[in-house]
Amino acid sequence: MFLTHLACPRCGARHDSEALTNLCSCGSPLLARYDLDAVRAAVTPAALAGRGADLWRYRELLPVRDDAHRVTLGEGWTPLWSADRFGAAIGLDRLLVKDEGLVPTGSFKARGAAVGVSRARELGARHVAMPTNGNAGAAWATYAARGGLRSTIAMPLGAPLITRNEVVAAGGELILVDGLIGDAGKLIAEVVAAGGVFDAGTLREPYRLEGKKTMGYEICEQLGWRVPDVIIYPTGGGVGLIGIHKALEELRSLGWIGDKVPRLVAVQSTGCAPVVRAFEAGERRVTPWADARTVAFGITVPAPLGDELILDALYATGGAAIAVDDAEILADLRAFGAAEGLLLCPEGAACLTAARLLRSSGWLGPSDEVVVLNTGAGIKYPETVASAGA
Amino acid sequence: MFLTHLACPRCGARHDSEALTNLCSCGSPLLARYDLDAVRAAVTPAALAGRGADLWRYRELLPVRDDAHRVTLGEGWTPLWSADRFGAAIGLDRLLVKDEGLVPTGSFKARGAAVGVSRARELGARHVAMPTNGNAGAAWATYAARGGLRSTIAMPLGAPLITRNEVVAAGGELILVDGLIGDAGKLIAEVVAAGGVFDAGTLREPYRLEGKKTMGYEICEQLGWRVPDVIIYPTGGGVGLIGIHKALEELRSLGWIGDKVPRLVAVQSTGCAPVVRAFEAGERRVTPWADARTVAFGITVPAPLGDELILDALYATGGAAIAVDDAEILADLRAFGAAEGLLLCPEGAACLTAARLLRSSGWLGPSDEVVVLNTGAGIKYPETVASAGA
Repeated sequence: MFLTHLACPRCGARHDSEALTNLCSCGSPLLARYDLDAVRAAVTPAALAGRGADLWRYRELLPVRDDAHRVTLGEGWTPLWSADRFGAAIGLDRLLVKDEGLVPTGSFKARGAAVGVSRARELGARHVAMPTNGNAGAAWATYAARGGLRSTIAMPLGAPLITRNEVVAAGGELILVDGLIGDAGKLIAEVVAAGGVFDAGTLREPYRLEGKKTMGYEICEQLGWRVPDVIIYPTGGGVGLIGIHKALEELRSLGWIGDKVPRLVAVQSTGCAPVVRAFEAGERRVTPWADARTVAFGITVPAPLGDELILDALYATGGAAIAVDDAEILADLRAFGAAEGLLLCPEGAACLTAARLLRSSGWLGPSDEVVVLNTGAGIKYPETVASAGA
Repeated sequence: MFLTHLACPRCGARHDSEALTNLCSCGSPLLARYDLDAVRAAVTPAALAGRGADLWRYRELLPVRDDAHRVTLGEGWTPLWSADRFGAAIGLDRLLVKDEGLVPTGSFKARGAAVGVSRARELGARHVAMPTNGNAGAAWATYAARGGLRSTIAMPLGAPLITRNEVVAAGGELILVDGLIGDAGKLIAEVVAAGGVFDAGTLREPYRLEGKKTMGYEICEQLGWRVPDVIIYPTGGGVGLIGIHKALEELRSLGWIGDKVPRLVAVQSTGCAPVVRAFEAGERRVTPWADARTVAFGITVPAPLGDELILDALYATGGAAIAVDDAEILADLRAFGAAEGLLLCPEGAACLTAARLLRSSGWLGPSDEVVVLNTGAGIKYPETVASAGA
């Protein structure tokens, strides 16, 4: 393993990566750091080509020391395919979709759960807890059970119904909250304070991010070790976006992708757009969004803990933040289905709305190579399409 | 392409494989045949290792001539992983699950749709129609849209709700039927009789099977080009089981897996078990099952068209057919979730019930290597787990 330490991006403090750790004493999330010179000497892109079709192909860049602690259900290495017909309809010649519906539990959250649970188990955790908008809790309960750990998951009543069932099926303890993810977080804080339970909330431990960053590795490897012009990501807690940014920085440091930087785009809903508001004002932190609500429930995060890291990623890459409204999300979900067949998740559809609007405004050019993340399986969201007789 | 012709397994007739074709004039489904000597000369297992992680890695054994007609969303190459904890609980040391939830539309039906739609398009079809228990229709509507074809899908009211939405989202024509799949079939027969529409019902065209057989190729390749002792498959229309049997025969002819034959097991519900009844009586055809009903809706097929091919596969491999009841399916679904985390589909859970019963009876030995197919994503079946407050 090439993991060396945990670094605080806010105050610069260095932390031991061999102890179960949450936030820095300054309150910031921590980032896992590797000996990249040693990684470069140990492995090459050509050597990766023959490895298994899951995220563990990047094991030198992941934080699990002993394979015996790897908790896996075959997650990662999702397909990246062209959406030419829909692309043409919105004026993009090179529109690609990375389909994160094809992971266990049907959302990209499984990447974070696989790596996060593996590392938590390796460091001695026996019980994890977290607030969630649904999919992360479903994934963590699933992987916790797979790894022999207990789980306690608190989610809003508005979260997708199927995610409740996934938690229960995995034997997790489910707490339903009449509120938003922040209210669920308060309940989990009490559970954690009582002792014996590891807080695995978004960015409160450093390794979920390491699982999610593999989306960035895969995009580059699937393009033949180069980057696209733009990557568009739905942004709630922001771990996917932060992870992709971290992955791109690591690959550049390794010399595997050259110096070109793709512009990163954070997509939020007009019903909950704290990152967009902060970005437009040039701020480095968000202010909490009041009365948050959107059909893209996964991105209903009024006050993301990783706000600085999200905004840094946007500023550093010449990116953008854009809010889209629910009616347009649902219209693009239907238009995409008619053109390309696949039922997207609403958060994925939101990224296509963003692509359409950014092309209309000229921020995207017609020949920009644009990668959109469909962060989950549309089949988890029966309410997005009304069907005859349903 | 190495496809040479279509062969009738009942009467031996040979048919042109370059024309859109349904059943043999004798009423039997047709099987695609390849020049396997030429395939053996053209490709080796070692050459396959470096190919893409989808079912098109087996292109020499698939019926699409021109890559331009390939209709794909990245389907296939699903994970095969050990379920040690659940295996130990039921007395099996080597229990493996192949998770077909990780394909577009969340079921193995996508394999058949990808290959079937590709070939139908290549041969000139512009509109496909079929009766379905839900998942096949969802997959075919999705891939039809992806390929620029129209689709007409008839399904029972009892089919999983989400599959209706998938058809509608893909722009397919959805017909809901107050009955079973046979009743839906009668409606589709009328649609097809009116002309201009290709009948893509189960085994009514020969290429859906070619997509599904890739499960068999993958199992062997993922085990290092060898076969397990037993493969357990939920059996409704039976295409998955027939396809795996065909794949194993082809790989044996190619000399890629040796001569060992895995025993194939067909799992049905006690609420709809025509294959089990025929198998136990030593028959070669089934008689239709009256009053069919089960929680494992995908296998509610009272009179499968491929009955001879299913029963042949069981007899030829020293296999078995077993019926399991709904209460046990749901109990094993929960027990598996608690042990291994993942929420299975009910048809997948039925296979675990079968494994448990076959181990209890001694038909399975403790060290038999057993592969169970989870044919779809559990997240398509919200009703299988009752959760607090849901």
